[in-house]
Amino acid sequence: MSTFDKLTELFRAFPGIGPRQAKRFVFFLLSREPSFLQELTDHIATLKHDIVQCTDCFRFFAKRTSAPLCPICSDKSRATGELMVVAKDTDLEAMEKSKTYEGKYFVLGGTIALIERKNGDALRLKELTSRVEKEVKNGTVKEVILALSANPDGEHTADELRALLTPYGVTISMLGRGLSTGSELEYADAKTLKNALKNRSS
Amino acid sequence: MSTFDKLTELFRAFPGIGPRQAKRFVFFLLSREPSFLQELTDHIATLKHDIVQCTDCFRFFAKRTSAPLCPICSDKSRATGELMVVAKDTDLEAMEKSKTYEGKYFVLGGTIALIERKNGDALRLKELTSRVEKEVKNGTVKEVILALSANPDGEHTADELRALLTPYGVTISMLGRGLSTGSELEYADAKTLKNALKNRSS
Amino acid sequence: MSTFDKLTELFRAFPGIGPRQAKRFVFFLLSREPSFLQELTDHIATLKHDIVQCTDCFRFFAKRTSAPLCPICSDKSRATGELMVVAKDTDLEAMEKSKTYEGKYFVLGGTIALIERKNGDALRLKELTSRVEKEVKNGTVKEVILALSANPDGEHTADELRALLTPYGVTISMLGRGLSTGSELEYADAKTLKNALKNRSS
Amino acid sequence: MSTFDKLTELFRAFPGIGPRQAKRFVFFLLSREPSFLQELTDHIATLKHDIVQCTDCFRFFAKRTSAPLCPICSDKSRATGELMVVAKDTDLEAMEKSKTYEGKYFVLGGTIALIERKNGDALRLKELTSRVEKEVKNGTVKEVILALSANPDGEHTADELRALLTPYGVTISMLGRGLSTGSELEYADAKTLKNALKNRSS
Repeated sequence: MSTFDKLTELFRAFPGIGPRQAKRFVFFLLSREPSFLQELTDHIATLKHDIVQCTDCFRFFAKRTSAPLCPICSDKSRATGELMVVAKDTDLEAMEKSKTYEGKYFVLGGTIALIERKNGDALRLKELTSRVEKEVKNGTVKEVILALSANPDGEHTADELRALLTPYGVTISMLGRGLSTGSELEYADAKTLKNALKNRSS
Repeated sequence: MSTFDKLTELFRAFPGIGPRQAKRFVFFLLSREPSFLQELTDHIATLKHDIVQCTDCFRFFAKRTSAPLCPICSDKSRATGELMVVAKDTDLEAMEKSKTYEGKYFVLGGTIALIERKNGDALRLKELTSRVEKEVKNGTVKEVILALSANPDGEHTADELRALLTPYGVTISMLGRGLSTGSELEYADAKTLKNALKNRSS
Repeated sequence: MSTFDKLTELFRAFPGIGPRQAKRFVFFLLSREPSFLQELTDHIATLKHDIVQCTDCFRFFAKRTSAPLCPICSDKSRATGELMVVAKDTDLEAMEKSKTYEGKYFVLGGTIALIERKNGDALRLKELTSRVEKEVKNGTVKEVILALSANPDGEHTADELRALLTPYGVTISMLGRGLSTGSELEYADAKTLKNALKNRSS
Repeated sequence: MSTFDKLTELFRAFPGIGPRQAKRFVFFLLSREPSFLQELTDHIATLKHDIVQCTDCFRFFAKRTSAPLCPICSDKSRATGELMVVAKDTDLEAMEKSKTYEGKYFVLGGTIALIERKNGDALRLKELTSRVEKEVKNGTVKEVILALSANPDGEHTADELRALLTPYGVTISMLGRGLSTGSELEYADAKTLKNALKNRSS
């Protein structure tokens, strides 16, 4: 296989990239200066050295010192007794950006799919239960907040995690449902309306 | 103008219908049996006689007796002390379908647009304040629930209604925000996440 | 069934209209002045009287006199020896609007679907063969142009019509393939490119 | 700037990639095995060495020997007297895939935009005129086929190239217009219909 075809194949593995766009990426690289390609390969080569995974919450963060914990996990002021479980790094980022949560996180690594358990293996379920068990024992976590998307996979994951964590005697909560920004009443489903009515505010 | 062009023009006034589809409607009518056209004109002709507007909540309903009130407004069991203000009939229908609300309604007739007050004239603002004033005096309404869409026009309308109704000394509430069905955490905005966290449930 | 539901059902039969939009049409009518509804029913009632089908080409046209032929069929200057077969009235309109064809038409009433012959019954195949037979005998038609869409149903219809008309000893032609306005070379299929190359012009 | 942010920035330069997807690419790389990253950087590093630009037609091709010409330009059987000008490599690929053209190519490197001449600098206009001049003198090219997309930029480029090449006394042709695969008659514009009628085939 030519370098062109091999590179096209590698780009096809990127999320959301089909065969046509993968090929366009290769033509794009061919059209750029050598310095662009050099910069790209340099940064890809050092990526895994510079960005490491936090040993506590499993999110990726830019390594600055030899400390194994990310800035959030090493921040004492965030020891609020709450542990928020999110599916992936970008969910954590969205939550941080909202400046609304002050506790700690746990990145599960995906969701438990309703239909096929494709991601099942890669999920950090054992790491989650170990952490909850230890923190409950130490009295450092009193509530686990399941912050999962309001779709079938998210709901299924929440159900499974609830079953998994219930034995540890911790309060388990879920993000509230309601009208999300942009929702039109006319198209809202019964579950959304029910919760929006229940959670109404003065 | 020919009957064809005139009918095309009338169909263009229908919501969401452009010139091409309006014309397709006329060709469609030409292709149907005379009985279909007869049925259509018969029902349009009697529509305003058979479907009337409730004098209390202003929604449209099928007239069965000479009573001026719709089935909801004449249902004593729905005198719960709550009055839900919705923008339009279809919003009321969505709420009824969710079987989650047991009080009464008021159909405003549209929203107060943030940019231009295009619908301003047609809105039943005066009717709303009269009704709230009377019901508060009688002690039959204790809470007005502003059930408006979670978009700029809906929010602007809520702000204006709140200012309008505050003098009457009634509790004013709004539907709760949160993750609506289908929302993905990664794409949720700060306001939605903030409320989802606040309204979390065990 | 209430007039509301009945009318919703009738609007659902309109091309491209789903249940939600059908209902929106009824609410729209309820919100209009009685004069609008009056105008609408008046025009629908006289539609089939004012717009008639040409006995030669079968297209719909505004009846002005008692003549059974449409303006195109009664225009002597259009007796060019060519007969263009189109699937429907809107195809004929697009062709007339392009001011590119000066002969006569025949509106088939649909296409012969590749999968199911759903429209088979309504198509004017017998009327087409009678007309071609007569006009060929009279020497008034020398070429039949099959002006059908470049999609599977259009191509299938062209194949069937070609087989049907071949016995009458008339030249049968089809609209040329090539790049249509807006086509990008990169996305063009082999058939389009082949014809675009063959039909290239200096 | 962290390696994460820098890499996100580099991916944003890729065609069709926004900030969100660029970030997702970096998370994707973080989640892959080191061997995947190694393979990716290896192939990017050798890309420009393995894939070179043909000195005659300027398309990119996998270098196998030290020959400066691509397989098409070095194929004697393709010396048909025709030179097809295309905007970019992927256009040439689409044409080759259609197995319909047997002559040679020239890749312009883009189109001359109607509004702003953004790509103007990078286009190989001088290389095109030199080649046409030389080949016309040698009698090896008799026709230049402008194979450009049927959109405003393509048409503008064709006009400009025609003006540029006319002095060399060569036949200049353009791909034919007509119904492209998938075109529906009803939505075809006048230009397409006019050409489809002119290029009709028996």
